[in-house]
Amino acid sequence: MPRFDTIAFDADDTLWHNERLYITAQTKLKTLLAQYHRPEWIEERLYQTEMRNLQHFGYGIKAFALSMIETAIELTEGRISGGEIQTIIDSAREMLAAEVELLEYVAETLALLAKRYSLMVITKGDLRDQELKIARSGLAGYFGQIEIVSDKSRESYERLLRRHNIAPERFLMVGNSLPSDILPVLALGASAVYVPYRLTWAHETAAPPPAEQPGYYELEHLGLLPGLLERLERE
Amino acid sequence: MPRFDTIAFDADDTLWHNERLYITAQTKLKTLLAQYHRPEWIEERLYQTEMRNLQHFGYGIKAFALSMIETAIELTEGRISGGEIQTIIDSAREMLAAEVELLEYVAETLALLAKRYSLMVITKGDLRDQELKIARSGLAGYFGQIEIVSDKSRESYERLLRRHNIAPERFLMVGNSLPSDILPVLALGASAVYVPYRLTWAHETAAPPPAEQPGYYELEHLGLLPGLLERLERE
Repeated sequence: MPRFDTIAFDADDTLWHNERLYITAQTKLKTLLAQYHRPEWIEERLYQTEMRNLQHFGYGIKAFALSMIETAIELTEGRISGGEIQTIIDSAREMLAAEVELLEYVAETLALLAKRYSLMVITKGDLRDQELKIARSGLAGYFGQIEIVSDKSRESYERLLRRHNIAPERFLMVGNSLPSDILPVLALGASAVYVPYRLTWAHETAAPPPAEQPGYYELEHLGLLPGLLERLERE
Repeated sequence: MPRFDTIAFDADDTLWHNERLYITAQTKLKTLLAQYHRPEWIEERLYQTEMRNLQHFGYGIKAFALSMIETAIELTEGRISGGEIQTIIDSAREMLAAEVELLEYVAETLALLAKRYSLMVITKGDLRDQELKIARSGLAGYFGQIEIVSDKSRESYERLLRRHNIAPERFLMVGNSLPSDILPVLALGASAVYVPYRLTWAHETAAPPPAEQPGYYELEHLGLLPGLLERLERE
């Protein structure tokens, strides 16, 4: 019998590239504001604006666009032109229309694991944007369940497991964010595999759990997951 | 035995006021642009921008804010100032923070119906915004299921009913939008109660079905729903 009933995957920067779209838009913003401020200061102020807006705007590209516009207005003391703000909106539209580019090993790993496990996506963010990305990714067929949530807390995982009748000890979560994919899942007594992505939004960073924490694993890329699962099943 | 197993309610402008928040923000935009254009032309251009952006931005307040900003830039040929655009973002923030005001008869009707039927919310829009409104409404306890979807088509209702194991002939949907709450539900062979709201976004209007269409009912307000259900159960 497999060690787990369900393996759930985060989506952005676990299955496909995402953060680099934000970095590209941020770079354009820095160029736009280059005559006013240093790039580091623009980045810091943008982050502060995003954190202040999180409560009302939530996550996702539209929230990011509104925060970029506010930051540009603040940092230019209102001198930014309408045409320049239009370029910020255009870069948000480009982000939303961007092609979904899978990370390495993702397609073949899911094809392999789908034969033995029930697979799920648990992703945070904008409902429509995430649905479109899942549809465009070509991966939808591997997943029995797709859950798009507004927040990944211990409570939201608890609700999800209860709703799908999954015992925590039979559940494994895979993702690139320690505070969203790993720590709340371990707190429930479930297992979690951390697969770091090379770019991480400051808001999604946290100290990793101790390496000896039960149920916690770290892998360099998703292609190593089937090997880890085999090893765990032999234990 | 009750005639229906599940009664599902739309949320915005069915359970609580919503469209008037958009009207207020639109009125502010018209004032802001009064020196440039007539109010009717601003309204028309805003609607065109919203329709053009729907594909990428979807529904909800953040999408509306981005469309308002784009319309303001276009209609002033870029002459709008940063400070003026900030007031548009501020009005979106006010919309997101607005108190939830229930429509008349909603609380007592739900309290009554919850004793006899399984109640559900099926609402479209921004995940986080809808969750916050349901939480603030004080109504969450009446609903066994809360479904936030990105689109209300015949296919999305079909998926929902299948997932919850509800036969169409045992399902009743209640809402204020003919194209979103009524027509796709009737197309499935389920029943639908149309409760018009005094303000309706142009995108949510459609010709009503013929009055004699089986399963279709229209009520002036939600307080009349228990009476309708009693009548249907005696038939």
